[in-house]
Amino acid sequence: MKSATSFLLAARQCEIAELEELARTSELVGATGRFIHALQRERGICNVFLGSHGTRFAAQRLRQVEECEALEGQVRAQFEALETGALPVRNGSRLFSRVAVVLNALDGLAALRARIARQALSARDATAAYVRLVNRLLGVVFESADTASDPKVSRALVAMFNFMQGKELAGQERALGASVFAAGYINASGQQQWRHLIESQQACFQVFTDCADAEVQRADQASRDPAALAELERLRRIGCSTRRELDPALSQAWYECATVRIDALRAVEDVLARHLRELCEARIAQARSELRDQRAMLAALASEPVAGNGAPFGPHLERSILGMVQEQSRRLQAMSDELDAVRNSLTERKVVERAKGLLMAHRQMTEDDAYKALRQMAMNQNRRIVDVAQAVLSLADVLPGVPG
Amino acid sequence: MKSATSFLLAARQCEIAELEELARTSELVGATGRFIHALQRERGICNVFLGSHGTRFAAQRLRQVEECEALEGQVRAQFEALETGALPVRNGSRLFSRVAVVLNALDGLAALRARIARQALSARDATAAYVRLVNRLLGVVFESADTASDPKVSRALVAMFNFMQGKELAGQERALGASVFAAGYINASGQQQWRHLIESQQACFQVFTDCADAEVQRADQASRDPAALAELERLRRIGCSTRRELDPALSQAWYECATVRIDALRAVEDVLARHLRELCEARIAQARSELRDQRAMLAALASEPVAGNGAPFGPHLERSILGMVQEQSRRLQAMSDELDAVRNSLTERKVVERAKGLLMAHRQMTEDDAYKALRQMAMNQNRRIVDVAQAVLSLADVLPGVPG
Repeated sequence: MKSATSFLLAARQCEIAELEELARTSELVGATGRFIHALQRERGICNVFLGSHGTRFAAQRLRQVEECEALEGQVRAQFEALETGALPVRNGSRLFSRVAVVLNALDGLAALRARIARQALSARDATAAYVRLVNRLLGVVFESADTASDPKVSRALVAMFNFMQGKELAGQERALGASVFAAGYINASGQQQWRHLIESQQACFQVFTDCADAEVQRADQASRDPAALAELERLRRIGCSTRRELDPALSQAWYECATVRIDALRAVEDVLARHLRELCEARIAQARSELRDQRAMLAALASEPVAGNGAPFGPHLERSILGMVQEQSRRLQAMSDELDAVRNSLTERKVVERAKGLLMAHRQMTEDDAYKALRQMAMNQNRRIVDVAQAVLSLADVLPGVPG
Repeated sequence: MKSATSFLLAARQCEIAELEELARTSELVGATGRFIHALQRERGICNVFLGSHGTRFAAQRLRQVEECEALEGQVRAQFEALETGALPVRNGSRLFSRVAVVLNALDGLAALRARIARQALSARDATAAYVRLVNRLLGVVFESADTASDPKVSRALVAMFNFMQGKELAGQERALGASVFAAGYINASGQQQWRHLIESQQACFQVFTDCADAEVQRADQASRDPAALAELERLRRIGCSTRRELDPALSQAWYECATVRIDALRAVEDVLARHLRELCEARIAQARSELRDQRAMLAALASEPVAGNGAPFGPHLERSILGMVQEQSRRLQAMSDELDAVRNSLTERKVVERAKGLLMAHRQMTEDDAYKALRQMAMNQNRRIVDVAQAVLSLADVLPGVPG
């Protein structure tokens, strides 16, 4: 017959096993971040390659593809290490589903690169394909943050996810700015899109600031190059101002200061990944030491003389066990409450995803078109995308057949 | 190398494994409900036994203890069947912790009964001890509802938990009414407590109504005895009205109509437990059939001629897999959103538990005293207990050392 103390210890062991699984997931998130960064560079290089009709960056592209393939191999190795056998993995259904989406996208990468090499698609379409792939990889990070069972680790993952997404939007902004400066002209819709990219980045970095550990925030502050940021803001102002003609010579300046900023973000991302790894290790060590303490305390108490009233333990032992089980129960409940609060930071993405799904289902749109439709509505109404998504969802409740 | 489709199928298998675990937890919840009902009867019998100085219900008590022991054995067998070995159980840390709390309380039951047999404690103290035990058993049900991974099953568990808690409050109301009618007098604090029990029941049954399946709600409607309920309301009105003297002859009438109502609630609880079991079975069968369909579709598509562009599958297969993985990802995300919404129904209990924990830690109160303090504040301020608990928590943020 299992006793109260055996369940007490089993609960602690489960907690350790959950933390160990989280540590593995965190490794996967780290590898995903490195791969995304390399893909973002490949995307930028392809843009120049296709825009120059294959005359520029041909060799850089091949080198970058090689780097990407190596990092893809590391991500695939992490996927491979996931336990998909007979034992059910915690939240496996959701994580594996996201992995399936990513693997499906990766399987199409060779064909995409072959078309780029043949210059068989436009720079715009190539960029869109890379954006989709990066978004799917971010889905794995999102899932890890949303299903983590420890509030501290979950908070670090939420910070990481928002930072990675902010950095991806910064990369999209770099590409947009480079192309409009190069073209020497920007239309009203381009300016709207630019402002939208700036605002979305700010929202992501705000969540990052709310959730990240102080050490990571200091690294973020220290990584900023004030001169590059001032130049970035100046060029943003020129691009988004009412004048529509742009000086093509600014293209190079824009690309450089945007790149300085993105490389600094990449360095912070490394600090985030390291912090996440150390946090998992510290939490595991802490849980293990608490388990040892509990065991030692139970062993010491068990040597107490047994009471004569038929109770299985002496009175001190019984009171101590009661204290321990109550304390543990309360601690786990408090952790679960904290977890709910952290996960609320992810609500915005969920609302947008759900509105997209609704548009896809009811209006037979592709995922891209659904997102574009939401973004267009947001820009037209001068509202945040999440507010438009919320409006689409509430409309759907009233008129099930006709959203939007 | 594992492919997108292998992760797609692994995700589905995880979902099935999670549902099977939920089915086992649901059995545990059912057994817990039957045991709680028997303990509630034992509590009522002990009340009469101790109140009559051992002259009444001595034999009934022994028979009821026997029934309780048999049902306790069933609950313990369900605990025993929980996997506490090397494999981590989903949410094991929280569930096992609750089980440890329950087992610890059950270990003290023999000593409690021995004291009751010797009439070594008051009816009031005996009742309080049973209330504590029932509350800990309800903690297991609460945990199952809060950690279930399927929104439909989770909704049924939330309905079940609130129904069981409402029924327990109805039992406490029966005991309170019986004792004040028997005494022939009720003071202002007794009336406050009575109104509080009525309001808390209503809150529980409201959540039950919001969450329960239509069939269960019909069973609940059909189980109500209008004559007994009319009598119950009449006697409630007499007990809670401004006159403080009561006719002791009404004690018997009160006990009878309250018992008719509680037995009807017990019958509905059986319907709830059956519905929960059937729901788990149906969800498992559905997930299994979807897994079979996916496998069959993949096998059919795999026989399609392979494309010459180096892609691992023909174009139809690739599009179909993409559709399947995207659909599955969206479905899981939607399920997770629904789950969040269902769990919000459990927030009130969490707030009260947290406020209790705070009072226990900062004011060195026992769990009982902390709850009583909250209840007293609620009664004095004529507010709901959850609002007072919320106020205690927000006060704690401002003055960490001095809550309440």
